[in-house]
Amino acid sequence: MSDGAALTEGAVEDTVLSIDAMGGDLGPGAVVSGLSKAAAANPQLRFIVHGDGPELERLIAKKRGLAEICEIRHAKGVVTMDAKPSHVMRNGKDTSMWSTIEAVRAGEASVAVSCGNTGALMAISMIRLRKLEGVNRPAIACLWPSRNPSGFNVMLDVGADIRADAEDLLQYALMGASYARNGLDLVRPRIGLLNVGTEEHKGRAELKVAADMIERVAPAADFEFVGFVEGGDLPSDRVDVIVTDGFTGNVALKTGEGTARLIREQLSEAFKKTPFSRIAALLAYTSLRRLVKRIDPRRVNGGVFLGLNGTVVKSHGSADSTGVAAAIQLAAQLSATGFHKRLAARIAQSEAAATLAIQQEESSE
Amino acid sequence: MSDGAALTEGAVEDTVLSIDAMGGDLGPGAVVSGLSKAAAANPQLRFIVHGDGPELERLIAKKRGLAEICEIRHAKGVVTMDAKPSHVMRNGKDTSMWSTIEAVRAGEASVAVSCGNTGALMAISMIRLRKLEGVNRPAIACLWPSRNPSGFNVMLDVGADIRADAEDLLQYALMGASYARNGLDLVRPRIGLLNVGTEEHKGRAELKVAADMIERVAPAADFEFVGFVEGGDLPSDRVDVIVTDGFTGNVALKTGEGTARLIREQLSEAFKKTPFSRIAALLAYTSLRRLVKRIDPRRVNGGVFLGLNGTVVKSHGSADSTGVAAAIQLAAQLSATGFHKRLAARIAQSEAAATLAIQQEESSE
Repeated sequence: MSDGAALTEGAVEDTVLSIDAMGGDLGPGAVVSGLSKAAAANPQLRFIVHGDGPELERLIAKKRGLAEICEIRHAKGVVTMDAKPSHVMRNGKDTSMWSTIEAVRAGEASVAVSCGNTGALMAISMIRLRKLEGVNRPAIACLWPSRNPSGFNVMLDVGADIRADAEDLLQYALMGASYARNGLDLVRPRIGLLNVGTEEHKGRAELKVAADMIERVAPAADFEFVGFVEGGDLPSDRVDVIVTDGFTGNVALKTGEGTARLIREQLSEAFKKTPFSRIAALLAYTSLRRLVKRIDPRRVNGGVFLGLNGTVVKSHGSADSTGVAAAIQLAAQLSATGFHKRLAARIAQSEAAATLAIQQEESSE
Repeated sequence: MSDGAALTEGAVEDTVLSIDAMGGDLGPGAVVSGLSKAAAANPQLRFIVHGDGPELERLIAKKRGLAEICEIRHAKGVVTMDAKPSHVMRNGKDTSMWSTIEAVRAGEASVAVSCGNTGALMAISMIRLRKLEGVNRPAIACLWPSRNPSGFNVMLDVGADIRADAEDLLQYALMGASYARNGLDLVRPRIGLLNVGTEEHKGRAELKVAADMIERVAPAADFEFVGFVEGGDLPSDRVDVIVTDGFTGNVALKTGEGTARLIREQLSEAFKKTPFSRIAALLAYTSLRRLVKRIDPRRVNGGVFLGLNGTVVKSHGSADSTGVAAAIQLAAQLSATGFHKRLAARIAQSEAAATLAIQQEESSE
């Protein structure tokens, strides 16, 4: 590795990413292609790549200039998509996924990226990186296409845990606000709590409790609480961060993706329908490409695990090289903004502020 | 009313619909326009229209031929969108919504249609029509655009009740299967249970119990159980009926609608972008119109309340005349197929069959 110095000296915290090359549906080939694409757009990136050594060496050698910025770490085990997280936690030490998280834990890389089994990745991340001080349940945050100026909203949790009580939802609000500040450059993010309606008599009891709690810490934690939002508000411009439990969030995420996929298919069929529509497709090529790109789920690939001592980006299992490159781009951004340290500081500060706010309120009652 | 005979004699059960003209966001004008559109396409329809008498008379008189097939029932009260269902149940006897349901209860009309407050409509329907024998929680079923030959899947519950235990989910499966048989003409519908994954270790405990119960009654109840499905399967062709609790179903429904709306907006922007794309839009006009129609949420307007002694179609609160016409078209279909009696018979039969299947299984153990 000619540029090894960058991996061990100054730039370590900013630019070295730990990549799990195995476990995705399309195999290590798609991951290596994704690395190559991402590296072309971000010359400051370096990778520690985990997986089958000989295969990775062969794949990486095929991409011009890639070998110079990759360090390969051989791992013989692969976490399969149907592996049970509890089994991986006990027996997964030899896997590429474990090795990927280990490099972040050891401080060799700033962010980990994997296309593998979400449950197993969360389980390994939990036991190796451990939860941030003050966090009860870590969450997975995703970006959601919206009418906001940035083009996105943040939603969490989209599947780290199927349960979330009122206090967990409050922590999701704090973590989501921090992510929106660093990831979307928003000074004072607007937080909404997902419910089936905005009326008083609707929704689950724990959501009313959570709404009160979030409302109360909003001034101290420096975000705006817009109250309950509905599924239809997910792509809207009235909210920046949507807070929900991991069951509901996961269903919503997959429903939105599935709907977008169906419409894209129908759109492309519509343009093949008649000779006129084929000519039309040519004429509208640029505008349509822009649209297709805008609604392409691969472009927003990458759920971020929040609430751990380290940043982990979970790419879609079915991600192709474009999807992997998007996940790596996201990891690079989060590394560059020093997101992890800021989040930790915010959580500590917000927890303190929240405690203070509640104490003051109690003493004034 | 020149054709009054049809309202009181032979055709009563097939073609008379009870329409709540008030309570929608766009007022009675949109509802009356919708009636006129639906009547033009369905000459056998007759309406009992409930609301402000003088205003309805004026609006209906403006539409050619509409007065002849409408009977107006004056009701001075209107259920507002923010009214609490419990309040409406106690004080809503003078409202157009109450009067609309009452006409179905009295057997004057076969199906009720309202654009009003969902919670209040369900509450009035529950106390006036009462639950079907054997049903614990009624549900709201909606049609979902899909890759199936019919173009649709059924999803329930989308918001009748935020809770659902395993037995409720079983009943939703039975009711959804019956709706799919009559509404989508499917002999042996495929039922799926919405979850965050299809793996054994994922999902809530009550979903595992429900899956076992649904699996067990499937042969006797004459449907196929495909197991767990995910949000991404909602528009798929691997399932006909998606069963879930009303909280998750409502979030999924609104998320799907919101995503489709965002993409339609972006599509129409894309075609206004450049002169080329404007010409393209003209050339592809027919194909695009077909697509826009296909993803138009107004076209599938109409949630159906299942599990009551009478059929109630809930139109979107924001429905315009096209949306109202779609809801009325759905009501007319359900009336024509004698859906309500078939559902009642199926529930009774399925309950008996399910009981038998469980008894046999227990005695053979």
